[in-house]
Amino acid sequence: MKELVFHIYQGYGFTDDQAHKVAETLIYTDLHGIQSHGVQRMFMYDHFIQNGKIRVKSRPEIVKETPVSAVVDANFGLGQLNGIYSMEIAIEKAKKSGIGIVTTRHSGHYGIAGYYANMAAEQGLIGMSSCNSRPAMLPTFSMQAFVGTNPIAFAMPANPHNYIFDAATTTVPQGKVEVYRKLGKDLPALWVAKDGQTPVYDHNDTETLNKTRDPEAYVGLTPLGGVTEETGSHKGFGLGVMVEVFTSILSMGNTSVEITPEDLSVGPAQSFIAIDPSIFGDKDAIIEKFSDYLQQIRELPAVPGKTIYVAGDKEALAYDDRKANGIIIDDHTLEEVTDIAKRLGIDYEQYIK
Amino acid sequence: MKELVFHIYQGYGFTDDQAHKVAETLIYTDLHGIQSHGVQRMFMYDHFIQNGKIRVKSRPEIVKETPVSAVVDANFGLGQLNGIYSMEIAIEKAKKSGIGIVTTRHSGHYGIAGYYANMAAEQGLIGMSSCNSRPAMLPTFSMQAFVGTNPIAFAMPANPHNYIFDAATTTVPQGKVEVYRKLGKDLPALWVAKDGQTPVYDHNDTETLNKTRDPEAYVGLTPLGGVTEETGSHKGFGLGVMVEVFTSILSMGNTSVEITPEDLSVGPAQSFIAIDPSIFGDKDAIIEKFSDYLQQIRELPAVPGKTIYVAGDKEALAYDDRKANGIIIDDHTLEEVTDIAKRLGIDYEQYIK
Repeated sequence: MKELVFHIYQGYGFTDDQAHKVAETLIYTDLHGIQSHGVQRMFMYDHFIQNGKIRVKSRPEIVKETPVSAVVDANFGLGQLNGIYSMEIAIEKAKKSGIGIVTTRHSGHYGIAGYYANMAAEQGLIGMSSCNSRPAMLPTFSMQAFVGTNPIAFAMPANPHNYIFDAATTTVPQGKVEVYRKLGKDLPALWVAKDGQTPVYDHNDTETLNKTRDPEAYVGLTPLGGVTEETGSHKGFGLGVMVEVFTSILSMGNTSVEITPEDLSVGPAQSFIAIDPSIFGDKDAIIEKFSDYLQQIRELPAVPGKTIYVAGDKEALAYDDRKANGIIIDDHTLEEVTDIAKRLGIDYEQYIK
Repeated sequence: MKELVFHIYQGYGFTDDQAHKVAETLIYTDLHGIQSHGVQRMFMYDHFIQNGKIRVKSRPEIVKETPVSAVVDANFGLGQLNGIYSMEIAIEKAKKSGIGIVTTRHSGHYGIAGYYANMAAEQGLIGMSSCNSRPAMLPTFSMQAFVGTNPIAFAMPANPHNYIFDAATTTVPQGKVEVYRKLGKDLPALWVAKDGQTPVYDHNDTETLNKTRDPEAYVGLTPLGGVTEETGSHKGFGLGVMVEVFTSILSMGNTSVEITPEDLSVGPAQSFIAIDPSIFGDKDAIIEKFSDYLQQIRELPAVPGKTIYVAGDKEALAYDDRKANGIIIDDHTLEEVTDIAKRLGIDYEQYIK
């Protein structure tokens, strides 16, 4: 499947190096069990490549730089390529100066934020990444969505595997609602609210659920913490705004409310942070201390029938499983991918077993 | 009241400058309407000063330093003084190098994290601060508390007033549960859980609620997002662990589980970050863009009877109110404070109207 993805992106006109990077990020995502953001997303990217929202020949460029920071204008290239480019700059700066913060404007959907955070962790550094997006989150007591799903990803080297936290600041990302609808399952908690406060659970309520993509409608995703201050709604909302600062505000890019799928002259903004733990002390001792801390958590008494996982554990388990048994591509997605391959004249059958 | 607090801390043996700083932070907190972390906390600090957990004569010191970072050993001095000292270092580094990250070990309870974040914002910088604490948060599916309440504070200059986000990564901090108990009010949401999943609402359930301070008991504060993955429990938990990295792990200080009120040789760790927005672009333009973004949020259609506030708005309103009408000290707290004053031989009556 990785080879097929490579050939498709080559077919769009990306260089071999670019096509390889895209295939790497998408298959990494599926291998770690995050199907909503892997090969499944190729259909959306295909649409944007065809209508020019993703510009195949664009290259990201540094527009401002200091020893600890950079602002990148991505010129509407493919999000994953902008993300890798930007995080590589952050990593280089962290290795030289201890810290690197990069904020990238005019980008595109870049998949999972955790991928970029983990790029730094793979080099022994702390990594962070965030992204804004078009309006999805209801600010506390607002009836209209305004803030994006604005994830925060944080990765830190640890044993037996890196700690990789990656979470939308909404209770769930859009993709999770879509997965439940595809599965014909009611939403199990207050993920979507209408009129700023009324829970929407019914997966058959198509009219309301379709409106989560419409910033003018009185429907939206709840912030982490729900819709009341008692449950912490203002906290998820506040974290979402913090993400906006590191992405669109510092880069002078497009804020959530300016982003639409139709307008080809706007795109999301992203942030990339790398920090070398050795500026604080002995790196090995720090990593060992953190690994011990995580292990103590795993060994706490668990609710009967449940397992205590720390961030990255489930993804590591999924990786072992997928490495042994292959990645899971649903029929609908496979059809979408083979249709793209056919259109590009790629002999796809040799890649699918 | 500020003068009374000053004289009490002077009475403990702190220098005038130190006593002034403590009075400043505590009254700042009450003036901004955060009663749980202001004068209300003096009783706890009094206990720790008496038993030697807070060492009056200690001074914080830098143990490792780079142009963008420092590790501070606070030597168990008073938390507020360590916090001001550490954030001043972060601010100085940000002004010179663009970014400053300070991690401080062997500190004490430092009040509201937002105070330190706002110190940076008052200087035109982005400020962040976090703190670990003794076990309070239930990791998702754990029956025992392990992670601290581990707040994340973020402040950014904005008009008409700074954006100041300050939130425990638990649904609420310990102090909020205490305030409800003092007021004789039931907990309005899933703030405390027993056996890892059962909500505790009854403010009269003293036996259970007292156990939120006991890491061995099967009682704890819920992470932001509650106790199930459907509501995002793992997100609050993961953010709490991220705070642990920036505080106890990078400083090689005491992790949450090592902190107890009894052991005088351990204390919480804190982090302080300052970032100069001008390393990314024109600072005034960035602040204006952010202020516009916040104003757009305030003007969204609100749930009937509700107002949409962004982080810092309520505190700004409380400040205006308290400045005009005085701060609110409940009778129980006033008695605690006057008892301390009496013991220290301070003529407290002249300060209380």
